Amino acid sequence: MSRNIVMVVSYDGTTYSGFQSQPSGNTIQDILEAAIKTLTGEELRIIGSGRTDAGVHARGQVFNFHTESRIPQERWALAINTRLPDDVVVLEAWEAPEPFHARHSAKRKTYRYSIDRRKFPDVFSRHYAFHHPTPLNVDAMREAMSHLVGEHDFTSFTSIQSTQPHHVRTIFETRIEEEGNMLHLFVTGSGFLYNMVRIIAGTMMWVGEGKLSPNDIPAMLEAKDRTSTGPTAMAHGLMLWEVDYPPEESRLHISAQDSVN
Amino acid sequence: MSRNIVMVVSYDGTTYSGFQSQPSGNTIQDILEAAIKTLTGEELRIIGSGRTDAGVHARGQVFNFHTESRIPQERWALAINTRLPDDVVVLEAWEAPEPFHARHSAKRKTYRYSIDRRKFPDVFSRHYAFHHPTPLNVDAMREAMSHLVGEHDFTSFTSIQSTQPHHVRTIFETRIEEEGNMLHLFVTGSGFLYNMVRIIAGTMMWVGEGKLSPNDIPAMLEAKDRTSTGPTAMAHGLMLWEVDYPPEESRLHISAQDSVN
Repeated sequence: MSRNIVMVVSYDGTTYSGFQSQPSGNTIQDILEAAIKTLTGEELRIIGSGRTDAGVHARGQVFNFHTESRIPQERWALAINTRLPDDVVVLEAWEAPEPFHARHSAKRKTYRYSIDRRKFPDVFSRHYAFHHPTPLNVDAMREAMSHLVGEHDFTSFTSIQSTQPHHVRTIFETRIEEEGNMLHLFVTGSGFLYNMVRIIAGTMMWVGEGKLSPNDIPAMLEAKDRTSTGPTAMAHGLMLWEVDYPPEESRLHISAQDSVN
Repeated sequence: MSRNIVMVVSYDGTTYSGFQSQPSGNTIQDILEAAIKTLTGEELRIIGSGRTDAGVHARGQVFNFHTESRIPQERWALAINTRLPDDVVVLEAWEAPEPFHARHSAKRKTYRYSIDRRKFPDVFSRHYAFHHPTPLNVDAMREAMSHLVGEHDFTSFTSIQSTQPHHVRTIFETRIEEEGNMLHLFVTGSGFLYNMVRIIAGTMMWVGEGKLSPNDIPAMLEAKDRTSTGPTAMAHGLMLWEVDYPPEESRLHISAQDSVN
């Protein structure tokens, strides 16, 4: 009987072409599948909670796969990490009930977009934060973000290249954290459209600059028109922060596991 | 009349052979001197506050140089940054009195050594922190660090390759900060010998592991013998944090400048 293994993986997306496999290669999925092959000999496909674009990072991306391997669940993370490059690190692995599916079972996803407000870029964050040295009105950005909460048609906040049949999504929560000169925009939702968080971040920067008002957000949602919103913020400031699942659906042995910290 | 320009520079030392120029090239000093040459046309040598080893980083390294250029002091940082790679960033520049010398005038230097205590390495800190997943007794490390404060002969805490004629230095202050799973060891002193902070960090990790006791430190200082102390910790966890100068000796126009934050 095959087992359903779930893993939480963090990666520095700087040099990769995104999470999902593609013909040109160089994706996180390719790297993970190759590592699993050297470990179990199986040519299998993993199921990610969703894609991340080229250059986007993950603190806690989740994926699962079905395997015949008998490796005990507590050995998986260490075993796979020794077969991964140092910019891809599996943080946790466990066995899930058979029906668990990293994409279909996900209930909430949180993304973080980071903005470095120093006069000159922080060298140590240069791959993980967008440099924006001119002033931003954080209170206005907070107010604008809050207008996104709820169930809305997010057509204005997705790329015109979106191939999704419908664009209604729910945002549960938004918040902005200040950490010294760094600004972190957090968005938690049921799911996100192509480029959605980057367009939210780009629009919020226009609000912060005073080019848009927080009160413009409802009309943008109403417009269902990509040209009503701000630019798509650069990929390197974006990080998939965490993916939430109902504990009873995602773990066979809950008590044996610690949550990701 | 030439002007004495001072700059504060931050760098990610990962891919460099250290601060100081050497025949094989690829140093921070080479990069800075080349950038100054494209800016002013001058073939000059900069004076750093001190060396940093290959792979060591700097939040606030300081250097100065004498130039005939008439570039106003407030334009220097931006002008040089456009000529530097993205892992070397000048944060501040100002004009100093003629006698100011980045090495001789320095009164205090602070280094930070960072230790990542997570079970698996944090991908985003992998070049800036040493990964140490087994438990460390932080209280013991704090106590051991405090025994280093004062004027001591640090022969036991320098490489046997040190070419310094004498090894007496003063440590003014030590402290350990915990930031989630990250541990930051700070050491502030009058000056440091070759590999001194890395040997202190390696020794502190042995104390944290229980291989040594905090009370062993005085005898180590007494021994004046490199074999009495712990290993030299890896370079990538080390960062030159800041260099302090007497304000009246280092700035011509103090009120016009903000300090580095």
